[in-house]
Amino acid sequence: MRTSIATVSLAGTLAEKLRAAAAAGFDAVEVFEPDLVTSPLPPAQVRSLADDLGVRIALFQPFRDPDDTDPSAVARTRERLRRKLPVVRALGCDLVLVCSSVHPGAVRDDDELAGQLAALADLAAAEGVRLAYEALAWGTHVADYRHGARVVALAGHPALGTCVDSFHVLSRGDDPDDVATLDKLFFCQVADAPLLGMDLLPWSRHHRLFPGQGGFDLARFHRAVLANGYDGPVSLEVFNDLYRQSDPGRTAVDGLRSLRHLADRAEPGTLPAAPAPAGWAFVEVAASPEGAPAVGALLGALGLARTGTHRRGDVDLWTGGGVNVVVNRRSADERARVSSLGLRVSRPHALADRARELLAPLVHRPVGPGEAEIPSLVAPDGTWVQFCGTTPDWLDDFTPTDVPAPAAGPALTGVDHVALPQPFAGFDSAGLFLTAVLGLEAGEVVEVPGPEGLVRSRAHTSPARTPDATVRIALNVGPTSATLRGRPVAAGHVAFATADLFAVVRGFTAAGGEPLPVPDNYYDDLDARFGLDAAFLADLRRHGVLYDRDGTGGELLQFFTRAVSREFFVEVVERRGGYAGYGAANTPVRLAAQRGVPAGLRAAGRSGPAGAAARR
Amino acid sequence: MRTSIATVSLAGTLAEKLRAAAAAGFDAVEVFEPDLVTSPLPPAQVRSLADDLGVRIALFQPFRDPDDTDPSAVARTRERLRRKLPVVRALGCDLVLVCSSVHPGAVRDDDELAGQLAALADLAAAEGVRLAYEALAWGTHVADYRHGARVVALAGHPALGTCVDSFHVLSRGDDPDDVATLDKLFFCQVADAPLLGMDLLPWSRHHRLFPGQGGFDLARFHRAVLANGYDGPVSLEVFNDLYRQSDPGRTAVDGLRSLRHLADRAEPGTLPAAPAPAGWAFVEVAASPEGAPAVGALLGALGLARTGTHRRGDVDLWTGGGVNVVVNRRSADERARVSSLGLRVSRPHALADRARELLAPLVHRPVGPGEAEIPSLVAPDGTWVQFCGTTPDWLDDFTPTDVPAPAAGPALTGVDHVALPQPFAGFDSAGLFLTAVLGLEAGEVVEVPGPEGLVRSRAHTSPARTPDATVRIALNVGPTSATLRGRPVAAGHVAFATADLFAVVRGFTAAGGEPLPVPDNYYDDLDARFGLDAAFLADLRRHGVLYDRDGTGGELLQFFTRAVSREFFVEVVERRGGYAGYGAANTPVRLAAQRGVPAGLRAAGRSGPAGAAARR
Repeated sequence: MRTSIATVSLAGTLAEKLRAAAAAGFDAVEVFEPDLVTSPLPPAQVRSLADDLGVRIALFQPFRDPDDTDPSAVARTRERLRRKLPVVRALGCDLVLVCSSVHPGAVRDDDELAGQLAALADLAAAEGVRLAYEALAWGTHVADYRHGARVVALAGHPALGTCVDSFHVLSRGDDPDDVATLDKLFFCQVADAPLLGMDLLPWSRHHRLFPGQGGFDLARFHRAVLANGYDGPVSLEVFNDLYRQSDPGRTAVDGLRSLRHLADRAEPGTLPAAPAPAGWAFVEVAASPEGAPAVGALLGALGLARTGTHRRGDVDLWTGGGVNVVVNRRSADERARVSSLGLRVSRPHALADRARELLAPLVHRPVGPGEAEIPSLVAPDGTWVQFCGTTPDWLDDFTPTDVPAPAAGPALTGVDHVALPQPFAGFDSAGLFLTAVLGLEAGEVVEVPGPEGLVRSRAHTSPARTPDATVRIALNVGPTSATLRGRPVAAGHVAFATADLFAVVRGFTAAGGEPLPVPDNYYDDLDARFGLDAAFLADLRRHGVLYDRDGTGGELLQFFTRAVSREFFVEVVERRGGYAGYGAANTPVRLAAQRGVPAGLRAAGRSGPAGAAARR
Repeated sequence: MRTSIATVSLAGTLAEKLRAAAAAGFDAVEVFEPDLVTSPLPPAQVRSLADDLGVRIALFQPFRDPDDTDPSAVARTRERLRRKLPVVRALGCDLVLVCSSVHPGAVRDDDELAGQLAALADLAAAEGVRLAYEALAWGTHVADYRHGARVVALAGHPALGTCVDSFHVLSRGDDPDDVATLDKLFFCQVADAPLLGMDLLPWSRHHRLFPGQGGFDLARFHRAVLANGYDGPVSLEVFNDLYRQSDPGRTAVDGLRSLRHLADRAEPGTLPAAPAPAGWAFVEVAASPEGAPAVGALLGALGLARTGTHRRGDVDLWTGGGVNVVVNRRSADERARVSSLGLRVSRPHALADRARELLAPLVHRPVGPGEAEIPSLVAPDGTWVQFCGTTPDWLDDFTPTDVPAPAAGPALTGVDHVALPQPFAGFDSAGLFLTAVLGLEAGEVVEVPGPEGLVRSRAHTSPARTPDATVRIALNVGPTSATLRGRPVAAGHVAFATADLFAVVRGFTAAGGEPLPVPDNYYDDLDARFGLDAAFLADLRRHGVLYDRDGTGGELLQFFTRAVSREFFVEVVERRGGYAGYGAANTPVRLAAQRGVPAGLRAAGRSGPAGAAARR
């Protein structure tokens, strides 16, 4: 696949956009006219910059409203094109995108329209330029790409062909399969989008996404393009308010990643095959030397024991009930956070090879003599992702302490999920990493109200769904500015699984741990909503456990600790009867409760009577 | 009018919301159930807090999905209500909002539905509570408020009445006039919204606004409510993503301001009448002692002269051609910005009286002996607004310098407009201030792409539109985080008017001023779009002047200086043939050009040969 990106998909000046596209590895770009108009570089210099960078300028766009029922407007349009052609040539480009007209004076008659387009194609051909006619989804008369292609056929001009854009096809619900049979397909643009119920124009102008980030079936669209025999660039034209203001280098990498993933989704085997992660090896929490004891105290109160220390020191291993938590005490940031995900992968190097093709190369971490070499990547939010084999050889890097592992009992059974806080503009980038690079499946975007604003959350789950082999990673993004009112939300955490949550909570409080206070009003409401058994409701209330039930009777019991930092706390969940969600209905309660307890001050049990006394 | 606000309209905890509503001056609140569920305060304590604060809890809401075709669901619904009633009573409240059902099992038959609602009303009445039935715009069967009222009439239960919500009426395009004839109108909610083409539910849940901030005709709706004889609270139920994360005190003030303004729009004379501003007395720019010389040099190069100094020093008056600019050199902020707007008002104290009723009380500024007393307000963004009479007595506060006023000539003729940068969440608040308090009229929201993201802009204009008497204030808001990539946009400026822009520019460059560089590509594009006369195009290009033409032949010529700070630069415009806009099509060119020239470094002419030399 030859790859391209429209400059409108990236932030910055035209020169910055070209550099970002080239650095990511695109073959070509489309120059969006306003980017050229606002650039201090004359077209010839833009061309030589592109030449230096090794990207081709494959298309100049858009030329709008090409047809008109008013003859004087037709003459002005011809003159407008005549003046643009030298600019196109100076860019070293030979293709111009012509959009179907959106004004009320657009030509309705196909023969007349074909004649006007052919006349423009004549002008273009004289300068060695071709025109690609695109049906905009909101065109006055031409809105269906098959209609556009019929007009192109009627015109019968060698310099006039068709451009298809997945957004304009799929946003209307048109069948994309006919793309396979189009004659003279001159150019192909792809964009995804969330399935929003809104007018086509603002949807298109503000909410487009890269393939795989939205709700369109782009693999099917792309198969139709391949079946067509089209061998030109597949180009990302993504109008997105956040991409317009984000680092263009990052955006370009995301774009190329999405295209390579699309090629593999359309034709599996295009990328090296690799199994998705199938379980957790460990979760690593980074803390400052001063902050680490609070993290350790919290884990200890939950029944984990510090059973190992890393050979090179400053890193502890906490274990118990199938859970491994690595606490790295070397962080310069005083806020504890989940810093690394150790995933169980049956063929780590195969997944790493695939990741490299998806622009996520391995990163090097210092490895001492005899230590395990774990292939590692860095996710867009900076979290490390480490591919551990199914044999836990990495445990050998830790020297056992003399603390015995916890006795078997009704305690933790594994890691249920990890939630990673994302910067406001990073949600879609992180999601693409989890789906394309790690092979997880994205769930619905959920919005929950907190006292500081809406929090968006999206879970990503491994294809394997057995208790031992399920990897669940949730991405959370807070209000536009999480500090608008100076009290940020707690957005990152690790959730452990258990088969007996009440027992875990009893152990936690007995060890001096302080549960998050849950309002009585919450339990009164639970009672009204679910009509729970009185003794069970009393248990929930006494233990500060939250409850949810799904439509098929599956149940979730949830327990939250106070936040250690704004980016770290612990949740423990008990899933009953196949409950598959995350208790989103309870999230507002958790957000409000954590806001009522300042992070870091009384975060963890101080163990023993002192901690217990502090609760009174 | 008795005033109320739903707690969901405000950020924070339930207690914070109640305090904010009380501080603004609301008579009552609606308690949104999730706010109670997440609150640590039991209902009785919420009641006593409300009592202490002097706000009544007028409504508890929502009770959802009251009807069902499945008898067992009906029984569960009754039980759900039965358990909620003691909570409602403990709040000291006697009214519950019941929404029309949105689930597929909702009852279609009106008689059956009326029977189920009457049974619920029986339960409620036994506890001294009444139910207000509201037709949600997306209700399964009941979506029209008139249909809802028919069902209420069929039920014929004294404890069952109707609630109307302007959003649910107007979003569907329903005629609001029939509200006037509704029997048993138990409650009235109002919300405005921008006219977005999107599905009703997400539109309602994310984009509601206070009355006057959106596109609905709420004055007509409110007249129907008044004609009905309804004398309960008029309550703001505004789901808005930004209000959910903004200071609740500010949001509550905006809400009450919008209600009082609504009452006056529905029945003019409810507020004291006052004329809107009709011209500019002065524009004040605040600069640090170090930054002020650059501002002065810029004004000097544009033909203004420093003709006065304030009696108490540190403040200069720059005049020429009907323009007065006050440069305050006392700012602690090194970024120069427009800090105060001196507006000509025919009856300053009448407008101040009206402003006070709209929660914008006069603020006190230190006034020395013999100095002019100018009634002053502070706009939500911190800009001072000063009401000067038609006699410029405030000029007496300035001691004339020995610098002569500029000779009459083809120079500036007045202030065309001022553009004020707004914080991301402040756009609608500032707009309400300009429309409600100052009586300006809001234009369309315009979005323009810049190299760092989209910039939204909205102009507000005085009703009087003669060259001398037009006040235009534009509000600009940049990308979510203007500093995402570290290079903020220049968002604030003052625009002067002239009848001969080329002459102004010649004078500016002759005085050593440095124009903003405009790309050649821009002029090539202008030529292609407009087919301009070659000599005129050459003049535009030579002078760095931008051009626009509207649909009726009106023309705009624009000239921009380099930015002095990220919040201050100067524009000069020449309007020809009744052009009424702001050249939005040119804004991307200006934004890109200002980004190419670091703010503050070469901001203004250094006067004379040195400045001229620096340009080479």
